[in-house]
Amino acid sequence: MTRSSNVTWHESHIAREDREVRRGHRGAVIWFTGLSASGKSTIATALDHRLFEDGRFSYVLDGDNVRHGLNGDLGFSPDDREENIRRIGEVAKLMADAGAVVLTAFISPYRKDRDRVREIQTRDMDFIEVLVDCPLDVCEERDPKGLYKKARAGEIPQFTGISAPYEAPEAPELVVNTSELSVGECVDALMEYLGAKGYLNA
Amino acid sequence: MTRSSNVTWHESHIAREDREVRRGHRGAVIWFTGLSASGKSTIATALDHRLFEDGRFSYVLDGDNVRHGLNGDLGFSPDDREENIRRIGEVAKLMADAGAVVLTAFISPYRKDRDRVREIQTRDMDFIEVLVDCPLDVCEERDPKGLYKKARAGEIPQFTGISAPYEAPEAPELVVNTSELSVGECVDALMEYLGAKGYLNA
Repeated sequence: MTRSSNVTWHESHIAREDREVRRGHRGAVIWFTGLSASGKSTIATALDHRLFEDGRFSYVLDGDNVRHGLNGDLGFSPDDREENIRRIGEVAKLMADAGAVVLTAFISPYRKDRDRVREIQTRDMDFIEVLVDCPLDVCEERDPKGLYKKARAGEIPQFTGISAPYEAPEAPELVVNTSELSVGECVDALMEYLGAKGYLNA
Repeated sequence: MTRSSNVTWHESHIAREDREVRRGHRGAVIWFTGLSASGKSTIATALDHRLFEDGRFSYVLDGDNVRHGLNGDLGFSPDDREENIRRIGEVAKLMADAGAVVLTAFISPYRKDRDRVREIQTRDMDFIEVLVDCPLDVCEERDPKGLYKKARAGEIPQFTGISAPYEAPEAPELVVNTSELSVGECVDALMEYLGAKGYLNA
C-alpha cells in the first residue's frame, strides 16, 4: 500500500456461505425462552457440549457471560430489559454470521422482544425459537437460586410468572418439555431438529 | 429431567482451553487502531482472508457490521463514542472466548478506551494492539470517503486528526506502516507475529 495506491481497495468480508461450507454446518441462533428454572441454561449448555463433541462451532450466551460484561450497564427497568434482549440478539447475529451455532438462554418473556430479534437476523432460517416448557409449579419447586421464594415474599418485584407475565411463543420452531423429558432427551430432540432441517450440512 | 430431578445440575460451560485445543489455535482480539483511511479495515479484512484460507476461525468487527446493529442506538457524543468502544470490546471478548481470532477495525482514538478493552480480556495474551500507522497527509490524500474534505470544510465536527486528537498507543504489540508496506506485507507481519507468539498452536 504505497502512498499512491488506492486504499479504497478493500477485499470484501468473507461471505457467510463460504464460512459455512468450510465449517460444514450452518450458523444459526437457537433462542431458548422459558420461565426461570425451566432449564434453559442446562439444555443450552448440554447441547453446546454435544455440538462441540460433534466438531461443530457453537457457543452459549447466558447471564453468566453477558449480564456483567456487555450488558453490565443495564438494570431491570422495562427499557433496560428490552435493551438487554436487543443487544443479545445483535451479538447472536454477529456470531451466527461468523458461522457459529449460538445458543441463548434468557427468560426473554416478551413476544415483541423475541420477534424483533428474529426480524433482524439475516435469513429466516437463522432464528430457531425453542420454548423450554415447564409448569410454573415445577419451576417453583426446583427454585435452585431461591428466586421464586424471594419473589413470593415480595423481595423481587416484576418476577416472571409471579408478578410479571410470561408470553409463551405462539409458533416456536421447537418445544422441549423439561418436566417430562431428561436433559439428554431434550438435546436429542434438538439435534434431530438441526439435522432434519439441514443445519448440520453446508 | 423429571419433576423430582434437580435442575441445578448444570454442566459448566466448555472451557476456553478445550475449544482452543480442538481448534488448534488461540482465541484472541487483534485490535487495530489508527486514523481514518489509515487502512485498518483493509488490513483486518485481508488478514481475515489469510486466516480463513489457513483454516483458522476469525472474524472482523468493523463499522459495517456494528454501527447499524449492536451500536445503532449510539451517536457521536463523547459518551456514546466511549460506549461504542466498550461494547465492541465486550463482544470481542465473547467471540475470543468462543475461540475466535477477532479482528476489530475502529479508529478508537483514545488510549483510555483501548486500555479498558485490554483490561477486561480474560488473559494478558488475549489483546493484541496493532497501530495502523500512516501519516495524516497520506490518509488525507487517500480520503476514500471524502471525510477529510468534509472535516476540513467544517462539516464534520470532532474529526480525528483534524479537529479531535488521536492518541497513538505507547506500547502496541505491533505497528504496521501502510504508507511503506503493501497490504500483503502487513498481513505477513501479522501472521509472523501470531506464529512467533504461539497463537497458531494450541
